[in-house]
Amino acid sequence: MPLDVISEAKAHGGTQGVYRHQSRTTDTPMTFAVFTPPQARDGKVPVLWYLSGLTCTHQNAMDKGEFRRAAAEHGVMIVLSDTSPRGPGVPDEADNWQFGSGAGFYVDATQAPYAANYRMYSYVTDELPGYVATHFPADMNRQGIFGHSMGGHGALIAALRNPDAYKSASAFAPIVQPSTADWSRPAFEKYLGRDRATWRPYDATLLIEDGHRFPEFLVDQGTVDPYLDDGLRPQLLKEACDKAGIRLTLNMREGYDHSYNFISTFMDDHIAWHAERLKR
Amino acid sequence: MPLDVISEAKAHGGTQGVYRHQSRTTDTPMTFAVFTPPQARDGKVPVLWYLSGLTCTHQNAMDKGEFRRAAAEHGVMIVLSDTSPRGPGVPDEADNWQFGSGAGFYVDATQAPYAANYRMYSYVTDELPGYVATHFPADMNRQGIFGHSMGGHGALIAALRNPDAYKSASAFAPIVQPSTADWSRPAFEKYLGRDRATWRPYDATLLIEDGHRFPEFLVDQGTVDPYLDDGLRPQLLKEACDKAGIRLTLNMREGYDHSYNFISTFMDDHIAWHAERLKR
Repeated sequence: MPLDVISEAKAHGGTQGVYRHQSRTTDTPMTFAVFTPPQARDGKVPVLWYLSGLTCTHQNAMDKGEFRRAAAEHGVMIVLSDTSPRGPGVPDEADNWQFGSGAGFYVDATQAPYAANYRMYSYVTDELPGYVATHFPADMNRQGIFGHSMGGHGALIAALRNPDAYKSASAFAPIVQPSTADWSRPAFEKYLGRDRATWRPYDATLLIEDGHRFPEFLVDQGTVDPYLDDGLRPQLLKEACDKAGIRLTLNMREGYDHSYNFISTFMDDHIAWHAERLKR
Repeated sequence: MPLDVISEAKAHGGTQGVYRHQSRTTDTPMTFAVFTPPQARDGKVPVLWYLSGLTCTHQNAMDKGEFRRAAAEHGVMIVLSDTSPRGPGVPDEADNWQFGSGAGFYVDATQAPYAANYRMYSYVTDELPGYVATHFPADMNRQGIFGHSMGGHGALIAALRNPDAYKSASAFAPIVQPSTADWSRPAFEKYLGRDRATWRPYDATLLIEDGHRFPEFLVDQGTVDPYLDDGLRPQLLKEACDKAGIRLTLNMREGYDHSYNFISTFMDDHIAWHAERLKR
């Protein structure tokens, strides 16, 4: 499958590119961004997957994530996926920011009419990694994953379900129990149907309850995040990790909100944390 | 004149805010952004003015400039101005990105119908500093100025005409001789009229030729910038500075373009350079 280069520019000694390919998983063209650090000139580098939150594309973190300096310093490739399939043939609810376009929730939908395209779990954990491995100097034995909000949820479930694929996982303000949160429960029902047993593989705290394990997580959470109490609820992850013996570093960050002002502030910390684990 | 707070969020330990006020200079509401570093809790801090390029508002550098980490580290306030007056009553050429809205060129227009609003030189060197001094913890005895492209031009002329107001001045890919560059000459004629003698106070190389001085400049320029040869021409600034005995550090950056990928890469260097001079 060919690589369609949308743009490439030198940044922080490496290359910030935007690419497009035809996805067999979502049956749509998918756009993604890759920052290739300067160290890739000398061989394959670790790759860190960033999953974005509701309403986002690859562009939000590319513009506002402030990740390139640290990625170049540590020699880590950063890949930014889109958050849903998009296009004229893709079923959507244009007025609903919590469902459809921009709101794939990193699940593989099973319900009509969504099942044909909304397969973001397989896209980000399987097809896109395979594609990146083919076209970029990524060392697939050294993968980490992180994300923000809905993308934090995505990173946690990807890690818990694929502990051999990822060596590290972290999140900014993740949705830790999407199957019970107001802003995700309706989407889960439309994508996955009413049988809640089918939701459990897409819910970090329930995956842990069901025996899935990952060595450790790093989570940063702003204390003035407007979604903290209803949507995010990091204490549920803390309880699940404590019970399961999973090491969770949960940093409550005084005065920070849910925006990229928060994310960019702690981006360096997360990249350094991943880099340390990816180089072991 | 009251301060209208559009948004404020904690970022990198400080506050990233967006504000609006009614400008008596441009006779329009003007929006600007301020990053107040954490050190401002303990007293006034040096202030560094950033002037943006063609088509930009305060938003471009706020999103993509990657300046907050270094500004917080060095304790420097960063103010991002708009690049032109805007609004329903402001004369404009909507299809022309090199004139009118987004293209104020940091001149005080003298020609009808532009003279009533397009007074960005006085706005950024006089009214906005006075306003910021009143409403923010800015030490006005320690001001620096920098900018990109059209805003690099703005920073150079502001410094050369006000060497006592600014202690430091730098630029990313500045338009060093706007009165002869293809993309600025038509705007100069519309704003200032046909008498080219009136253009000289808005042209860095001609200001130097006319005896204006500033201690030193730092300029970074990408080598694959598509505007390098026709629009920017840093060698003209080099020649003028050499002749005048002005110290110019001109860094030609291999492989970098004209975008924020370039600017953000060298943002840390510029802020550190200014901070050193602002704290002397």
